[in-house]
Amino acid sequence: MIYFDNAATSWPKPEEVYQGVSTFMRRAGANPGRGGHRLAQEAAAMVEETRQALAKFLGVKNAKQVVFTSNATEALNLGIKGVLVPGDHVVTTSMEHNSVLRPLHYLQRDGISYTIVAADSEGYVCPEKVENAVQSNTKLIIMTHASNVTGTVMPIVEVGQWARERGLLFLVDGAQTVGELAVDLSQLPVDLLAFPGHKALLGPTGTGALFIRDGLVLQPLLVGGTGVESELAGQPEEMPYRYESGTLNTTGLAGLQAALNYHQKLGQSAISATISALTNRFIQGCSMIPRVTIYGPKEKAVERTGVVSLNIQGLNPDELGFILDEVYGIAVRAGLHCAPQAHKTIGTYPAGTVRFSFSVFNNIEQVDTAVEALQEIAEQSGG
Amino acid sequence: MIYFDNAATSWPKPEEVYQGVSTFMRRAGANPGRGGHRLAQEAAAMVEETRQALAKFLGVKNAKQVVFTSNATEALNLGIKGVLVPGDHVVTTSMEHNSVLRPLHYLQRDGISYTIVAADSEGYVCPEKVENAVQSNTKLIIMTHASNVTGTVMPIVEVGQWARERGLLFLVDGAQTVGELAVDLSQLPVDLLAFPGHKALLGPTGTGALFIRDGLVLQPLLVGGTGVESELAGQPEEMPYRYESGTLNTTGLAGLQAALNYHQKLGQSAISATISALTNRFIQGCSMIPRVTIYGPKEKAVERTGVVSLNIQGLNPDELGFILDEVYGIAVRAGLHCAPQAHKTIGTYPAGTVRFSFSVFNNIEQVDTAVEALQEIAEQSGG
Repeated sequence: MIYFDNAATSWPKPEEVYQGVSTFMRRAGANPGRGGHRLAQEAAAMVEETRQALAKFLGVKNAKQVVFTSNATEALNLGIKGVLVPGDHVVTTSMEHNSVLRPLHYLQRDGISYTIVAADSEGYVCPEKVENAVQSNTKLIIMTHASNVTGTVMPIVEVGQWARERGLLFLVDGAQTVGELAVDLSQLPVDLLAFPGHKALLGPTGTGALFIRDGLVLQPLLVGGTGVESELAGQPEEMPYRYESGTLNTTGLAGLQAALNYHQKLGQSAISATISALTNRFIQGCSMIPRVTIYGPKEKAVERTGVVSLNIQGLNPDELGFILDEVYGIAVRAGLHCAPQAHKTIGTYPAGTVRFSFSVFNNIEQVDTAVEALQEIAEQSGG
Repeated sequence: MIYFDNAATSWPKPEEVYQGVSTFMRRAGANPGRGGHRLAQEAAAMVEETRQALAKFLGVKNAKQVVFTSNATEALNLGIKGVLVPGDHVVTTSMEHNSVLRPLHYLQRDGISYTIVAADSEGYVCPEKVENAVQSNTKLIIMTHASNVTGTVMPIVEVGQWARERGLLFLVDGAQTVGELAVDLSQLPVDLLAFPGHKALLGPTGTGALFIRDGLVLQPLLVGGTGVESELAGQPEEMPYRYESGTLNTTGLAGLQAALNYHQKLGQSAISATISALTNRFIQGCSMIPRVTIYGPKEKAVERTGVVSLNIQGLNPDELGFILDEVYGIAVRAGLHCAPQAHKTIGTYPAGTVRFSFSVFNNIEQVDTAVEALQEIAEQSGG
């Protein structure tokens, strides 16, 4: 089995992650709590160490600004619902995942409106287009850091700077970048960054986080027990507990801690370069195959992630995905990838594309095998 | 180390749970998805098998009515925010956890009001008191199945039947009962049941669920990608996907599946009886110790769970908890247990109590050791 579905969730995880989860569960799997017994303290220490490691990884000075969530979707829901009030307007892009577009669609019932800025055919959104869509009541700009369909990296620096100058909030969906591309929040003009722990960060499912810029106070999404200030009738104000009600996924966070150690060991630049090299080789190989259409940026390697969408003329994406899995043992994802507007943008709606997405656990041989497989399939289906 | 903090999270977990998590992560840790590759299908099958097993365990005929959440707090937030609209009134009890009381407090800003019915000094809430608190605009009654402070089991059958006859919704917080006491939803008049997977169910942290009675449609808490009907701008209507946006904690659910198998192997009645026997022995032993006050029901063993709150006269609960941990290696939880109203009810606010909570992994010897430790501490602190 060759696994090229890392944009859905990375697999395998580093051995350290398996070990980290197992060791925590077996040895100290208690519920974190201040002033509790030693196992509870050990669990609390693990959670805070993981928060520190994640903050450091992202260039965040104060770890309290990193709030744990169960996935990127929860982080996006918290970020979006947490800042918007009736009458607000949002600008976003056609390359967003349903985890952005559906919350916005949903919030229309609360008198919140939004404008979707169309990307070009390669999935790129011009900053000027975003700027032109801003209205007098615009409060928030939401942009994916990179498309989960085309891998296109968005101009978040330009858009973020422009937003900051105008006092607009800027929320970035880092689902496809955190762990794959360098993300240094000490340099980026970003107010909110949502991301999962289980994709390029190589942690377990059930983990994710929202970075909240210093000074920004959101309405919490979940309210309840926080383990701090239990006597208060209302939700505590203190970061990060204000946004972390209920028992955290400590099991998953132990795995995420191990994953962050693994990242540090390999180094972000080595990880980025490896995935980029595999992606370029794959695109180059596929470009030679007649009747294969590759979507997204093809020339400028630095401006895309390790996500490649393609189709073979005359084959439905579902069929192609099925053949790759059944005949070649290659795991990819076919369809709309929870991003229907992105497929409308690149002209692949409603059937979608077949998406290949790479991780550091992939290698050149696997990429070449996939290119050969696509060549065979293209020849056969065209014959 | 003797672990008596199972009401926070159960520990240890069955060996099968460790194995289940590990095997899933290593072998098939893909992201579930319909029509995906074989690993995605395997992950999807695991999720649905776990849902089926959980539904069967609870006497729920249609597994789609069981919605996975990341913990009981998320399930409660979904249940509470999902049914209430401005103008609604809620009746609840003074024994509720902050995961119920804080959402209600929070929703006041949306024009939702609530009445807290006081329990008696043993933590029991008389059904008539609940009934008397109902107003013309009451939509929902929320009651914990058993207190996380006193272990008191509440009259959910009586209250639920009364509520059903009057067309009121009834939400039960099963955080302290599901997995410990038999819960058969085919017999119980319950519309919504929220519970964690990591307490008496013995599954990993990061798991929980909300049972939603057939025909009841809630506003979702999280909206986003569901893997189904990706082309829709709005959230799909289909159960359970309407309420399950984003990547599920598959790692945790694999462990929960193993935990449910373990429950089936042992049998619910054997589990209940074991915990009840340990609890009774502990209460009996502690009753002999001068200067120890035990809270909650003492006589009627069937009407309490394996949660015992106590204090030693002249000792702060935090001190007692610290001594038990440091000197005797006994892990308990001291303080307010995220339930300040419950402590006001039983007269232990603001210092709280020391809470012992048992699981099937505890035994008589451990209970006796704890009783002896308490005796020693009581003697020394009184001398």
